[in-house]
Amino acid sequence: MNILLTNDDGIYSEGIRALYKSLKEIGNVTIVAPDTERSAVGHAITLSDPLRVKSVNREGKFFGYATTGTPADCVKLAIRAILKKRPDIVISGINLGPNTGYSVLYSGTVSGATEGAILGIPSFAISLATFENPNYTIAADFAKKLTKTILDNKGLPEGTLLNVNIPAVDKKHIKGIRIVRQSKTAIKERFDKREDPHKRIYYWLTGEAIESDNQEDADIEAIRNNYISITPIHCDMTNYNFIKKLQGWKF
Amino acid sequence: MNILLTNDDGIYSEGIRALYKSLKEIGNVTIVAPDTERSAVGHAITLSDPLRVKSVNREGKFFGYATTGTPADCVKLAIRAILKKRPDIVISGINLGPNTGYSVLYSGTVSGATEGAILGIPSFAISLATFENPNYTIAADFAKKLTKTILDNKGLPEGTLLNVNIPAVDKKHIKGIRIVRQSKTAIKERFDKREDPHKRIYYWLTGEAIESDNQEDADIEAIRNNYISITPIHCDMTNYNFIKKLQGWKF
Repeated sequence: MNILLTNDDGIYSEGIRALYKSLKEIGNVTIVAPDTERSAVGHAITLSDPLRVKSVNREGKFFGYATTGTPADCVKLAIRAILKKRPDIVISGINLGPNTGYSVLYSGTVSGATEGAILGIPSFAISLATFENPNYTIAADFAKKLTKTILDNKGLPEGTLLNVNIPAVDKKHIKGIRIVRQSKTAIKERFDKREDPHKRIYYWLTGEAIESDNQEDADIEAIRNNYISITPIHCDMTNYNFIKKLQGWKF
Repeated sequence: MNILLTNDDGIYSEGIRALYKSLKEIGNVTIVAPDTERSAVGHAITLSDPLRVKSVNREGKFFGYATTGTPADCVKLAIRAILKKRPDIVISGINLGPNTGYSVLYSGTVSGATEGAILGIPSFAISLATFENPNYTIAADFAKKLTKTILDNKGLPEGTLLNVNIPAVDKKHIKGIRIVRQSKTAIKERFDKREDPHKRIYYWLTGEAIESDNQEDADIEAIRNNYISITPIHCDMTNYNFIKKLQGWKF
């Protein structure tokens, strides 16, 4: 089995190292990941600049390829230019911090898996729902298990990927798995308006998601209750329910 | 009526100027747009750098605010820090080049409108389906008409925006409007592998979309037949049809 890994925290992150160690027990793993952190890049791709690739060692051994691009660039580059064989699966993560609700749209981690899905390869993104003292063991084990499950089930529907979030608790507290929808998360954000040493104004985005969607089928609610959440995400963003109504509008 | 404009071709582009001239006939228009081109940035937001804002004149008069951020940053900044009053509508464009099929995921233009929808404001993205000799007149006129239509219909469903593409033909050749879905567009892309003057390798993404989806309800097919295409896009990317099947998987 050929496995491609990417992420948005960069090739030197601990999350991708944990994923690598776990997945190489079941297949040939290639890492193509950004050379530094690329969080909240959305589904960006690099058109106006060239991309560079370099080999990276970790712990004295070849670890993978670092690129100057985004997670989506990494997956494109891997499949179109680096790998000799098309991978059987693309995994993006393990992200430090959850990717639920509208974060799915902003997430570089999710976009790595989205690119895999666009290119017709079974793909998932995996995130650990904490920003502090991460223990990636459960997530890394689950990624291995999920890889087998996806391939046993002959992949995923066209243009669909899985978005997985792992609660940051001890294994004994994990209650199970929930297949859930992307939650509706209100975002309470603001800009810090500041003055630089040269008296020029700048703004810095801050704020937090308000976890307001507490229905049982919401991603955020699953994690809050110590379930692993799996959301099938697709690349067709059409709101089909609204098409009929819109056709009735007078233009 | 208060109207917020943004784009991804940058504040100095002709597309946003055409939009501005048309929309100011029906409301108070504020422009908050990137200071340079930000194409294919997807739904990126800027977290690790501060954002700066400056006033921009065009044709000797105040035109709008240029920021160092992405289209999504611009809309956030406008609503959270620049505008005194919440806009009634957010319009992103007029983009030079179509945004159909999977391009919707990569498009900075669409992401400007997506951010408006996330923030609960009726929003649309508008693109002209050509890269050469653009004539923005029809698109600019249609944007004005659509703005009125959206507000007459009391806005759009929660988390839904409209993605509009205008065929690049004379007005007399436009056959009408089609409400369509995001098409499935296969992308035939490759990387040019080159050597820089210092003998180092770099890669440059190239290729084109294969307009393979020719069903009548596809965005690309509408434009090909000289219809204005309108696709309702929503921010909930859950593949609901697959949830039930996935719940039957053994993990």
